[in-house]
Amino acid sequence: MVIAVDAMGGDFAPQAVVEGVLSGAARLPAQIALVGRPAEIEQCLATSTQWPDNLQIVTANDVIEMAADPTRVLRRPEASMAVAVDMVRDGQAQAVISAGNSGALLTLAHTRLGVIPGVRRPGIAAPLLSRRGPTVLIDAGANVDCQPLHLAQFGLMGSVYAEHVFSIENPRVGLLNIGAERSKGNSLTAQAFDLLADMPINFIGNIEADGFFAGQADVAVADGFVGNIALKTAEAMAQFLMGDICSCLDDGLGGRLARLLLGSRLGSLRERYDYATYGGALLLGVRGVTVVSHGRSDPRAIASAIEVAYRAVEGGVVKHLAQACRQLVSEVD
Amino acid sequence: MVIAVDAMGGDFAPQAVVEGVLSGAARLPAQIALVGRPAEIEQCLATSTQWPDNLQIVTANDVIEMAADPTRVLRRPEASMAVAVDMVRDGQAQAVISAGNSGALLTLAHTRLGVIPGVRRPGIAAPLLSRRGPTVLIDAGANVDCQPLHLAQFGLMGSVYAEHVFSIENPRVGLLNIGAERSKGNSLTAQAFDLLADMPINFIGNIEADGFFAGQADVAVADGFVGNIALKTAEAMAQFLMGDICSCLDDGLGGRLARLLLGSRLGSLRERYDYATYGGALLLGVRGVTVVSHGRSDPRAIASAIEVAYRAVEGGVVKHLAQACRQLVSEVD
Repeated sequence: MVIAVDAMGGDFAPQAVVEGVLSGAARLPAQIALVGRPAEIEQCLATSTQWPDNLQIVTANDVIEMAADPTRVLRRPEASMAVAVDMVRDGQAQAVISAGNSGALLTLAHTRLGVIPGVRRPGIAAPLLSRRGPTVLIDAGANVDCQPLHLAQFGLMGSVYAEHVFSIENPRVGLLNIGAERSKGNSLTAQAFDLLADMPINFIGNIEADGFFAGQADVAVADGFVGNIALKTAEAMAQFLMGDICSCLDDGLGGRLARLLLGSRLGSLRERYDYATYGGALLLGVRGVTVVSHGRSDPRAIASAIEVAYRAVEGGVVKHLAQACRQLVSEVD
Repeated sequence: MVIAVDAMGGDFAPQAVVEGVLSGAARLPAQIALVGRPAEIEQCLATSTQWPDNLQIVTANDVIEMAADPTRVLRRPEASMAVAVDMVRDGQAQAVISAGNSGALLTLAHTRLGVIPGVRRPGIAAPLLSRRGPTVLIDAGANVDCQPLHLAQFGLMGSVYAEHVFSIENPRVGLLNIGAERSKGNSLTAQAFDLLADMPINFIGNIEADGFFAGQADVAVADGFVGNIALKTAEAMAQFLMGDICSCLDDGLGGRLARLLLGSRLGSLRERYDYATYGGALLLGVRGVTVVSHGRSDPRAIASAIEVAYRAVEGGVVKHLAQACRQLVSEVD
C-alpha cells in the first residue's frame, strides 16, 4: 500500500507534515510518498535521525495556497496536492492526505478521482470523540446547501465507514437535530428523516448534541453547514473550557500543586480533546481514499491522518461504498 | 414592576420555580406574581422560612404539559402559562417567565401579545458566555426555517438588546458562519450577509465558533436551527468535558487531593459553564418582555431569568425595539 501525502499542505507545512509522516511511517506497514518540493522536504528530513525505508519523495514544484480559489486549482496540475491526488487516480497510491486548502482538495478529489456511481454528493466523515468511542459526523463541511436525498446518502456512506473502518457491526445512524422527537427540526431534516428511514441502514431517528457526545449513535448525519458549525462549536468550547481549567491550575500555590498532582492525567485529557477534532476526516463518495486534514495539523494530527488512511484502505472502504451505492444508481437516474 | 412567573412550567416545577422566585424576589425591587395552582405553590412555599412581601399568587388551574402540541395551547386559556402571558397583555405585569413547553410559550406570546410592527419573525436571544462577557446568540431556536430578511432583523433586534440590556455601546453584530471570509457559508448566509450590511447596526461580518467564544462579537446571528444546534453543542461539550475533569479528580489519591486544593475554584468554574447555557433567553419581537427558560431550570436558573426579565423591562427593550423596527415597516409592507 502506498499513501500519498501532500508535504506542502497546512499551516505548518512542510515541517509538521514531514515530522508526522516520520512518526506515522514508523508505525505502519505502508509506503509513504511525500509529495512536494524535494529541497524543502529534505531540509525537514535532515533534522531527523531516522529516515525509514518506506519513505519516498515525489517531486511537485507548485503549491496551492491556503487562500487559493478552489475553482481554479484544476489549472495547476503541478501542485503537490494535485500530484498526490493523481497518484491515487493512476493507481500509484491507494490513499491521499492533505492538510492544505480543503476546498481545493475536495475539488481535485471530486474531479480527478471521480464520484462513485449513485452518489449525489461526496461528504466529509469526521470521527469525533464521544463517551462510547468515535462517532462519525457526516457531512462535516463539504456541502453547505443540501437536499434531503444528500443527507440520506450521507447516512448510508457513514454507516459503511463505521462498519469497515471502526469495525462496528450494524452501526446506529442518527440524524443530528434540535430535538429527539420525530416532529422536531426544519423542513430539510423532516424530509431527510423519511428518506433515512427507507435506507438499508440501522436508522435510530433524531439525536441531539448531548446524545451525540453520550455515544447514542455511531454515525450522526447533518448537512455540511450544520455539521461544520457543530464541529467547530465543539472544538471551540473544548478549547475555551480547557483554557479556563489551565488558568485555575496556574492560580496560586493550591492551583500549581493541583497541577503537579494531576500530572500526566491532565496531559492525556488535553490530548483526548485535541484528538476529538484533529483526527483525519475522510471524503466519502469519491473513487479513492481521500483524507482531509485540519489546516492547523501538527505532527500528531498528520500521523493520525496516516492511520485513518491506512485503516480506510485496509477496510476496503471505497469498494464497500461502491457496493452499497450500487442500488442507489437506479434511484438516482 | 410586576413579573409574572409560570409556577407550573419546567421539569422541576413548581418546587424549583418557587425556590428560584424566592431567591430572585429577595434581590430585586419588583413584584413577582407566581401563576399556577395555589395549593401546590403554597406547599412549596411552606418549606420556606422567608416569604417576601413582594410575592403574590395568581390562580391558574390548568397546566400545559412539556410534550403538549404548541398549536393547541390557544384553546387552554386557564393554563398557568396562558394566564401569565395574558397578565402582560393586560398590563397587569411587565414581563412573563416560563420554563415550560417553549413551543407553547412562543405560540402564546406571539398570539396573545402580538408582534412589534415591522418584525417578520420574533427570535430567541440567548446570552452565552464568552471570553469578554456575554455574547447574545439570536435566533437560538424559535425559527427552524429562515429567510435572509429574518436573519437581518435578528441582527437589528440583537443589537438593541445588547445595547439596552447589557449596556454595550454600538454592539458588534456578527453572522455565525463556517468561515470568516465573506465568500464562506451557504446560500442563506450569503444573502443575509448583504442585508445585514445594510442594517443600521455595527455589522462586523462573519464570525466562527472560536471567534464567538473569544468575544469577537456582542451579538451572533444565526437561523434558529443552526443557533439551537450551536447552543446545544456548546452545552453538551461543556458537560462532557467537565465530566471527564471530575473523573480525573476522583481518580486516586492524587486526584482527590487536587480536588481539595482546587476547592471553590472548581465550583465556580462549573457554575460559570452552567450559567453559559442556563441563563434566561428573551423572545425578541413580541410586544412584551418574554423570558424563555430552560426546561431543566433549577432555582438558580429561575432567579437568573427573573434578573434578565427585570433588566429587560428596566432597559425598555420593547420600546426600543419598536423604535428601531419602525423603519422596517415600510420595507416589509
